[in-house]
Amino acid sequence: MTELITAVETVDVRFPTSADLDGSDAMNPEPDYSGAYVTIRTNRGAAGHGLAFTVGRGNDVQVAAVHALAELVVGQPVEEILSDLGGFSRRLTGDSQLRWLGPEKGVIHMAAAAIVNAMWDLYGRREGKPVWRLLSEMTPEQLVDLVDFRYLEDALTRQEALDILRRSEPGRAERTSRLLREGFPAYTTTPGWLGYSDEKLVRLSRQAVADGFPQIKLKVGASIEDDVRRMRLAREAVGPDIRIAVDANQAWGVPQAIAWMKRLASYDPYWIEEPTSPDDILGHALIREMVAPIKVATGEHTHNQVMFKQLLQAGSLDILQMDASRTAGVTENVAILLLAAKFGIPVCPHAGGLGLCEMVQHLAMFDYVAVAGTHEDRVIEYVDHLHEHFTDPVRLRGGRYLAPTAAGLSAELRPESLAAHTFPTGAVWDRKVPA
Amino acid sequence: MTELITAVETVDVRFPTSADLDGSDAMNPEPDYSGAYVTIRTNRGAAGHGLAFTVGRGNDVQVAAVHALAELVVGQPVEEILSDLGGFSRRLTGDSQLRWLGPEKGVIHMAAAAIVNAMWDLYGRREGKPVWRLLSEMTPEQLVDLVDFRYLEDALTRQEALDILRRSEPGRAERTSRLLREGFPAYTTTPGWLGYSDEKLVRLSRQAVADGFPQIKLKVGASIEDDVRRMRLAREAVGPDIRIAVDANQAWGVPQAIAWMKRLASYDPYWIEEPTSPDDILGHALIREMVAPIKVATGEHTHNQVMFKQLLQAGSLDILQMDASRTAGVTENVAILLLAAKFGIPVCPHAGGLGLCEMVQHLAMFDYVAVAGTHEDRVIEYVDHLHEHFTDPVRLRGGRYLAPTAAGLSAELRPESLAAHTFPTGAVWDRKVPA
Repeated sequence: MTELITAVETVDVRFPTSADLDGSDAMNPEPDYSGAYVTIRTNRGAAGHGLAFTVGRGNDVQVAAVHALAELVVGQPVEEILSDLGGFSRRLTGDSQLRWLGPEKGVIHMAAAAIVNAMWDLYGRREGKPVWRLLSEMTPEQLVDLVDFRYLEDALTRQEALDILRRSEPGRAERTSRLLREGFPAYTTTPGWLGYSDEKLVRLSRQAVADGFPQIKLKVGASIEDDVRRMRLAREAVGPDIRIAVDANQAWGVPQAIAWMKRLASYDPYWIEEPTSPDDILGHALIREMVAPIKVATGEHTHNQVMFKQLLQAGSLDILQMDASRTAGVTENVAILLLAAKFGIPVCPHAGGLGLCEMVQHLAMFDYVAVAGTHEDRVIEYVDHLHEHFTDPVRLRGGRYLAPTAAGLSAELRPESLAAHTFPTGAVWDRKVPA
Repeated sequence: MTELITAVETVDVRFPTSADLDGSDAMNPEPDYSGAYVTIRTNRGAAGHGLAFTVGRGNDVQVAAVHALAELVVGQPVEEILSDLGGFSRRLTGDSQLRWLGPEKGVIHMAAAAIVNAMWDLYGRREGKPVWRLLSEMTPEQLVDLVDFRYLEDALTRQEALDILRRSEPGRAERTSRLLREGFPAYTTTPGWLGYSDEKLVRLSRQAVADGFPQIKLKVGASIEDDVRRMRLAREAVGPDIRIAVDANQAWGVPQAIAWMKRLASYDPYWIEEPTSPDDILGHALIREMVAPIKVATGEHTHNQVMFKQLLQAGSLDILQMDASRTAGVTENVAILLLAAKFGIPVCPHAGGLGLCEMVQHLAMFDYVAVAGTHEDRVIEYVDHLHEHFTDPVRLRGGRYLAPTAAGLSAELRPESLAAHTFPTGAVWDRKVPA
C-alpha cells in the first residue's frame, strides 16, 4: 500500500497574551499570539506538525488560506513528496490560480510555510532525527535541489550554492559534536516590551545578564523621550559589555529613523531592527549608511527570497532575521541561508511569538553545521513565552539554546494546550472576549 | 439620525473564463476571473460597490479577508469616513493585529481595496458624480490629505505633492471638457492571449487596428520559438505603425528576460511587461538598462506604494501599471499617481479581469485632468471580457475610453449576473466543476 497524505488538518489557536502586554511594541500594542496550526496525516498513521504565526484577529483568514492549499496536498504520495521537497514547495507557491493571492506573500505564502514545515516535521520523525540534523546530513546536491533558482540567478547560481555547501562540508561532524556539547548563542527580548514598566524593564534586564545572555533587545519607536529613558536605564542595568539591540517594528519613515537613532546612539545600541517598512529595500540601505556603526537588522516581515536577494544586493542590512513561517518554511529558508552565505551576512533568526523559537533553532543550527560553518556574530532570539505548550520545548542553558534531540521540527502543540486554546470554542476563550 | 454603515456584504463571484482560454498567459494558463464583491450599505438606504479581483481558486480566502476587515467598518458614521478617507484607509491597513497578515500586501490589502473602492463608489453616488470627476474637483489640500506619507517622505513630501497638484490646477476645466468630448486613449490585449491559435491572433490583431487602437499586446514567455512566430505574425498583421507590447507575466529570471527580449527585438516590441518577479525592483532596473530602447512596464502585482516608490527611485520602469484592487484602492492610487508624477513616469493602468477596466478608467482620467495634466504616452488597457455584467460598463469609441458619466466607480454588478455567478451556488456553477 502506497503511503498517501490523507488529511491536512488546520486549527485556529489563539493565546490571550494581550492581557499582560507580553509582546507589545510600537506597531503591535496588544497582540494575541496565534497560529494556523497544521497537522498532516498519512494512511500509515504518520503525522507532521507546523504552524503559521499571527497575532490574533485574522487568524481565521490564515486558516482559510491553509484550507485552500490543502486541496493540492491531500491524496499525494508521501515518498514522492519527500524525495522532491523543492518541487513540493514550488507546487504550493506556484499554483496558477492561488498564486494571484500573493504571489509569494501574505497569508497564502504563510499557509505554504505551515504545510511545508509540517512535511519537514513528518520527514524528521520518519528518519528519527531533529530537522537541523536531517538537513545537516543531506548532501550539497540534495540541499541545492531544494532551491527555486528561477528569480535568484542574478545573485546566486546553482554552482555557487554548491560551492558554498562543499566548502563547509569537511567540518560538519566536528561542528555537530560541538553544537551538541555547547549549544548555540541566544539573546533575549523578554526585558524590553513596550508595555512594561521601567521597574520591570530594569529587573528583567539584570535577570537576563544573570542568566548568561550576551545581548538583550528593547522595543522602541512610540516616544523618543521614553526610548531615551528606557535605553539609559537598560544600559545602566546591564553595563557596557552586554549588547543592547533596539527594535522599532516598522514605526518610522526613513528620515525619522535616522534622526531617532542619532538620539539613541550615545547608549551604544548594537542594532536597529525594522526601522521602517519591511518592503523598503532602498530605505534600509540609506538608513544603514547613515546610522553606521549601528547595525541594521531586518527580515521577520520580509516575505520571500526575492526580497532577501535584493536586501543583500543593495547592502540594506548587517543582520538577516529569517522567520520560520513568513517565507515558505524550511525549504525557502535553505535558499535564504545560501543567499546570506554568498553575501557574507550573518543570520540571526526572528523568534518569540508562538513556536517560532522551537522552529528557527533548527535553521540556525543547520546554518552553523553545514552552510555558514560558524556562529560568530550569530544569535537566535529568545522570548520566554508559551514554550510550555509544546511537546518538545526549547531548552536554554547559560544564555544558549541546547540542540534539540527529539525527531522533527519541535512544532507540535500538547493536545491539552491545543484543545484549550482553540478559537473560539476552547476553554480559554470560552471565558474571554478577544481584544 | 446619524448615517451609519450597517453592512459590508461580500459575495464570492466567479466566471468560468477558463473554458475558452480567455485570459491565458505564461503564469495563468486557466484563470476563472473572480472577485470578492463588496457592497457597503447604510441605514439611509445608500450603497456602494467594489471588488477585489482574483483568478479563481482562493477567492474564498479573499472573501474571508474582507469579512475580517468588515468588523472595523460596520457601525461607523458615514460622514466621518467621507470627510477623512485617508484616515479610513489607514485604519484598514494599520489595524495592529490584522496588519500581521500583510503588512500592506496579499489578500488583506486587496480586501482593503475592495472596501475602500466601495466607499468611493458610495461617495460618488452621494455626490451624483463619477469618481474621476469627484477626484478632479477636490482641492490639492483635500487630495494630499488622502496620502499616507509615513514611508514616502524620502521620495515625495507633502509640499512636493501639493506643488504637483497646484501646477496642473489651472488646466483642469479645459481638460475635463476635452476628456468628455474625446475620451482617453486605450490599447487592447484581446488578440494576444497565449491559448489562442495563430489564426485567431491574426484575425483579432487586424480587428484591433480596424477598431482604431494604436497599440495591441501579446502574451509571451512560455516558448521562445512560439513567441518569435506569434510576434512576426502580429507585426505583419498590424504593420509598422501600431505599437505591440509584450507581457511575460513574471515567467523569467533576470538573465533569461534579457536574452528572450534580444530574440524578440527585431519585431520592435514597444514594452516588455512583468519580465520577472513583481518584487524584483533591482532586477527590473537591470533588465530595463539591458533591453533599452524597449520599455519596461510593471505594476499590476506591485503590492503597495512603498514598492512603487522604490521602482521609481531605482529607475526600474518606463511605464507604471497601477491596478484597481491590488493596492488599497482609489486612496492609495492617488498617492501612486503623485509618486509617478514626481518621477515623470507615465501611468498606464492594468485592466481586464473582472471590472478592472470599469474602475481604472476613473484613475487614469483623474490623472489626466488633475495630476499629470496630459495623456501623452498614456493608454488604458482594454480587454473585451465580462463588461456586460456591470450596470455601468465601459464604453469605447475609435480605440478610446469614453468618460463615464454615471455616478460612482462603475463597479456594480447587475443583480442577475451576481446571482448566476455566485460560487458555488449560482446557476452557472451549478452545471460545472471548476477547473
